[in-house]
Amino acid sequence: MNNIDNDGSVVALVPAAGRGVRLGASAPKAFVAVGGTPMVRLAVDGLIASGAVDRIIVMVPAEMVESAVALLTPATDSAGDMVQVVVGGAERTDSVRAGIAAAPDASYFLVHDAARALTPPRLIAEVADELRAGHAAVVPALPVVDTIKSVDALGIVTGTPDRSGLRAIQTPQGFAADLLRTAYAADVQATDDAGLVELLGTQVHTIPGDAQAFKITTQLDLMLAETLLTRLSSGYATIARTS
Amino acid sequence: MNNIDNDGSVVALVPAAGRGVRLGASAPKAFVAVGGTPMVRLAVDGLIASGAVDRIIVMVPAEMVESAVALLTPATDSAGDMVQVVVGGAERTDSVRAGIAAAPDASYFLVHDAARALTPPRLIAEVADELRAGHAAVVPALPVVDTIKSVDALGIVTGTPDRSGLRAIQTPQGFAADLLRTAYAADVQATDDAGLVELLGTQVHTIPGDAQAFKITTQLDLMLAETLLTRLSSGYATIARTS
Repeated sequence: MNNIDNDGSVVALVPAAGRGVRLGASAPKAFVAVGGTPMVRLAVDGLIASGAVDRIIVMVPAEMVESAVALLTPATDSAGDMVQVVVGGAERTDSVRAGIAAAPDASYFLVHDAARALTPPRLIAEVADELRAGHAAVVPALPVVDTIKSVDALGIVTGTPDRSGLRAIQTPQGFAADLLRTAYAADVQATDDAGLVELLGTQVHTIPGDAQAFKITTQLDLMLAETLLTRLSSGYATIARTS
Repeated sequence: MNNIDNDGSVVALVPAAGRGVRLGASAPKAFVAVGGTPMVRLAVDGLIASGAVDRIIVMVPAEMVESAVALLTPATDSAGDMVQVVVGGAERTDSVRAGIAAAPDASYFLVHDAARALTPPRLIAEVADELRAGHAAVVPALPVVDTIKSVDALGIVTGTPDRSGLRAIQTPQGFAADLLRTAYAADVQATDDAGLVELLGTQVHTIPGDAQAFKITTQLDLMLAETLLTRLSSGYATIARTS
């Protein structure tokens, strides 16, 4: 626990410059539409709805800055000048780094996948709450459903780690801002932002994730997202929290 | 490779005696309905549609044998006496053991989760093909979408295994029958049937799984399954294979 920055500003970083390969789109995958609305817009709406975020920085390819601003303007209208669009980079880490640079005032960062477009605002608020409570790194996590095995290059199974000790990690991943700045200044590599922080030796806390924060990467995910969005917008105010 | 039993019979084992806790049902979870049809019936229909299975043994609680026979009778009608219902056990392994005992004639076993109710018949046939080609243990596997982390009892992250070497395992899991018999005769414990075989030192081969073979465990999964089933039965003959 620490007692600094309890009133500090929470800045959400949304990398949206990655090229879509799995969803078969030529546009960056964050701009693929779910029920007519690009995922990045849905993700930004969720961050705003959480009430826990002071500013949102979306990183897009240079040639898409203008269209991204236009796309996110309705969100901007309803929430002042909360949303800012900056140029991202070729790799996800380049985009996050650009976002960090654009927010020297941040006390906390939430790094959020646009592809987790239907993440419940409540989950976003919970990550921010844990940061304000003094945890320096907080990630949502769910038990894994499938048995996980390790395989070699030929696809032969090499082991079956105990599933009870494994978690599937979601976003937003939350960090004390200085910790994330330090992690990105260090020249280390990891699969995710929390992984960078782990390499610095800092404890990463998990909180219960939510099935609805699933990552939209396949056509089947897109189908689920569209069904869910229809239900959410037509009176199913809440889908039962499932885990 | 081996050259025995290439014409041997393929027996599918479907454990359906486990109590539902996650879907909130009091009945065994395999009997929870998706679009009006119990999952176990959908799973059996898929096995039949694969054209790769000679016999299907479904293991249910003692008090449900009669209703399970009635439920699976339409499937039986369309496929002779292919489907057999036997009494399972309290634990999943007890049920699989009961199924093995009921099929002394099997040359190959496919152990299949009823909760993977929408598994494409093509995937089932592929597992059987690999067994007939001489692999003693074959499981469908997909890359993992979420970052996987290990955690301690307090939910603190203890590590982030390299995701590229991990796979999410689906069913049916296929085995040369004698291998599975040996694995169940040995007094060892594992999370899944392939895990037992790994403990015997036998190589387990993976083949590409299919997103549609997902396990139905949450209300959100059920929603996806119902949407998918509607589309499959209303002209979307195939959902694009996604991985």
